[in-house]
Amino acid sequence: MKSKGLILALAALAAVVVLGAMFMSFQRNNQVREERANLAPLTDNDTNPAVWANHYPRTYDSFLRGKEWGISTKYGGNDPLDKAKQQPEIKTLFAGYGFGEEYFEERGHFYALEDNEKIAPARRKAGAVCLYCKSSEVPGLLAKYGDQFGDLTYDEGRSQVTHSIGCTDCHNPETMALRITRPALEDALTRRGQDWKLASRQEMRSLVCAQCHVEYYFTSDPRKVTFPWDKGFTAEQMEEYYGSYEQPVHVDWEHPQSGTKLLKAQHPEYEFSQGGTHNAAGVSCADCHMPYMREGNTKVTSHWWVSPTRTIQQSCTQCHRESEQWLLDRVHYIQDRQFEALRRAGNLNVQVIQEIEKSSQESTVDAALLEEARALHRSSQWRWDYMSAENSMGFHNSQEGLRTLNQAIDLAHRAIDTARRARGLQ
Amino acid sequence: MKSKGLILALAALAAVVVLGAMFMSFQRNNQVREERANLAPLTDNDTNPAVWANHYPRTYDSFLRGKEWGISTKYGGNDPLDKAKQQPEIKTLFAGYGFGEEYFEERGHFYALEDNEKIAPARRKAGAVCLYCKSSEVPGLLAKYGDQFGDLTYDEGRSQVTHSIGCTDCHNPETMALRITRPALEDALTRRGQDWKLASRQEMRSLVCAQCHVEYYFTSDPRKVTFPWDKGFTAEQMEEYYGSYEQPVHVDWEHPQSGTKLLKAQHPEYEFSQGGTHNAAGVSCADCHMPYMREGNTKVTSHWWVSPTRTIQQSCTQCHRESEQWLLDRVHYIQDRQFEALRRAGNLNVQVIQEIEKSSQESTVDAALLEEARALHRSSQWRWDYMSAENSMGFHNSQEGLRTLNQAIDLAHRAIDTARRARGLQ
Repeated sequence: MKSKGLILALAALAAVVVLGAMFMSFQRNNQVREERANLAPLTDNDTNPAVWANHYPRTYDSFLRGKEWGISTKYGGNDPLDKAKQQPEIKTLFAGYGFGEEYFEERGHFYALEDNEKIAPARRKAGAVCLYCKSSEVPGLLAKYGDQFGDLTYDEGRSQVTHSIGCTDCHNPETMALRITRPALEDALTRRGQDWKLASRQEMRSLVCAQCHVEYYFTSDPRKVTFPWDKGFTAEQMEEYYGSYEQPVHVDWEHPQSGTKLLKAQHPEYEFSQGGTHNAAGVSCADCHMPYMREGNTKVTSHWWVSPTRTIQQSCTQCHRESEQWLLDRVHYIQDRQFEALRRAGNLNVQVIQEIEKSSQESTVDAALLEEARALHRSSQWRWDYMSAENSMGFHNSQEGLRTLNQAIDLAHRAIDTARRARGLQ
Repeated sequence: MKSKGLILALAALAAVVVLGAMFMSFQRNNQVREERANLAPLTDNDTNPAVWANHYPRTYDSFLRGKEWGISTKYGGNDPLDKAKQQPEIKTLFAGYGFGEEYFEERGHFYALEDNEKIAPARRKAGAVCLYCKSSEVPGLLAKYGDQFGDLTYDEGRSQVTHSIGCTDCHNPETMALRITRPALEDALTRRGQDWKLASRQEMRSLVCAQCHVEYYFTSDPRKVTFPWDKGFTAEQMEEYYGSYEQPVHVDWEHPQSGTKLLKAQHPEYEFSQGGTHNAAGVSCADCHMPYMREGNTKVTSHWWVSPTRTIQQSCTQCHRESEQWLLDRVHYIQDRQFEALRRAGNLNVQVIQEIEKSSQESTVDAALLEEARALHRSSQWRWDYMSAENSMGFHNSQEGLRTLNQAIDLAHRAIDTARRARGLQ
């Protein structure tokens, strides 16, 4: 009996030691993940990033760096740059459309909701769908309203959201796993025969960005955010999706001077990157835009989404062994060539608009040729806009960018020529 | 005395051992450099590579691989491809000039002299200067004739040379050091304030190639090979060197249909590479085109000059850790986009020629506008040709290549428009 008591005592002691070690190990793991065990678990209702700050204070600190703004990179950055000042041709190209009234660059995730209120009201006249990517509370609204979300006015939507882009947009609050919360991406992937739930972690490190950093449009009845991905990701393939000029699937607006039924590109970062050298090498968006940043003796995945030209050491030198200045020079070498082509294509489209307008005012104009000129105009401006709206000044895929602008330049000249012939100059 | 004798004997033995070891080490070093100590030293008179074979048999073996031909890469290779079949627009663009009669791609160094005899005689009507880069005996002729070398006919020059491109063209036969033997490069560098004798070995590994793989033209009186490098290396900077359309420094020929005074580009590989990503990273021509090749247990610097797409493992994977297929796909991704733009620019220039010809046949043509159209034609075709003649289908500097073609496309359209306006269509 005595020995049995001793065995039990020893077993109890061993159990205490093992459980203690497990607990300490658990604590240590949680410290690495910054989770605080004494807090209530995070849920989908925690759309306020400040609540997540209690669990992940260092990650939240990096997220808060998004407050900084007004710092320019060579072609943009976190500066609310007036694009129409940088490229005056924009005023003419977007005449009759919201972006012709005002086209300031966004300041980043932290200000998404605030900046969305500041834009020209014409740019959010589609209603609450304009908030689709601006608030972590949108998935809640989608659950509440379903397809009727598209019927809400902007103010009706805006009054129900408080927080800008946040943690729940990309993270499962229970497991921290990356996830898709915007059905438009899920739908587009499904139509392409893909299921994000089967994606690798590395793929998810780009797909969460592809919820918003893409080209999209709003269908009508119901008004839904939709990605034109069915034919592919290039400017030509999306144009094919959007349909012929005569029977378009979608038109954003009719240009008041040229009468062209035009498309407005959003920001096809995800699509444009496909096939680029970084993408081909398996690099995800997060690899460059969310590098590990050292803070004290800890590494934190940066949630400060900025141009990697501001974090070259963390973003680029993991793979590239050159100096920061050398790497920055390469980025600019590529971007300078893109910008030259972009300006050329944009300014040519201004001429296109002027020539079509002039021809359309002639009573003897050849209507068929005029429509042909407008079709060429739509194609050219779409290619220019795809590259103008894309937020890397060609860097994400420089050869494809220059190829696309190369087509835009050719098509613009053909539009000018056709418009002139429409008024009898052949 | 006896012990003194023993000491001397031991000292002698030690000397023999030391000298023996030194000799063996010397032998081993020489095996690495492949030099045979029992041969007469090489001199500048040894223009026949077969003589060098006795000293460097393995290097010579790799040189002899240049005999292989007819093996195509996607856009060329060692195949004497008929460029006019690949790009039919070439027949029109070079009408009235030797390249319009015949434009076969070269087979490489080994056949330079032989292929030079096979080309259309119109392509070598400048005389013996056409042999400037085709034979290792040319430096001897330059020493013998001085500026009068330019007065020799092709046949007068040809009868005095036997060997194609060889060892002495790039190597000092005494030291094996790289050297420049063509004064055109030395002169061009001097005008740019550079002295090749101060160049690093790594710079020399590109400069020896720049003796021939460049844009050049022949001055008259004396007729000398000259590089248009004074303003810089881009198509625009060379165009500036070649002067305005009204007062050109140089004209290659007048197009029989359009009447345009045109330039013919040679093969500006060295110039076009400047600023490209490989060049910016300090990579020389030889790093990719003359990699170390393993033969048995020895490494030999390849003297088999071919597209690095045929030696990806040796050429590319020293720096790039991807698979051969991945690397080849990247090369083609870049080249495909260049080729698309090249064809577009070339075909537009055919239209330019047709429009200028049509206008020039009108009695009421506006002569000033016609000349303006020709000036635009010269600019556009020059840019197309710079990229068409350059032997990497854009790979050496893809962003600059697409930028250059982008300008060619824009200028061609402007030429078409101006030509039409010259005959009263405005």
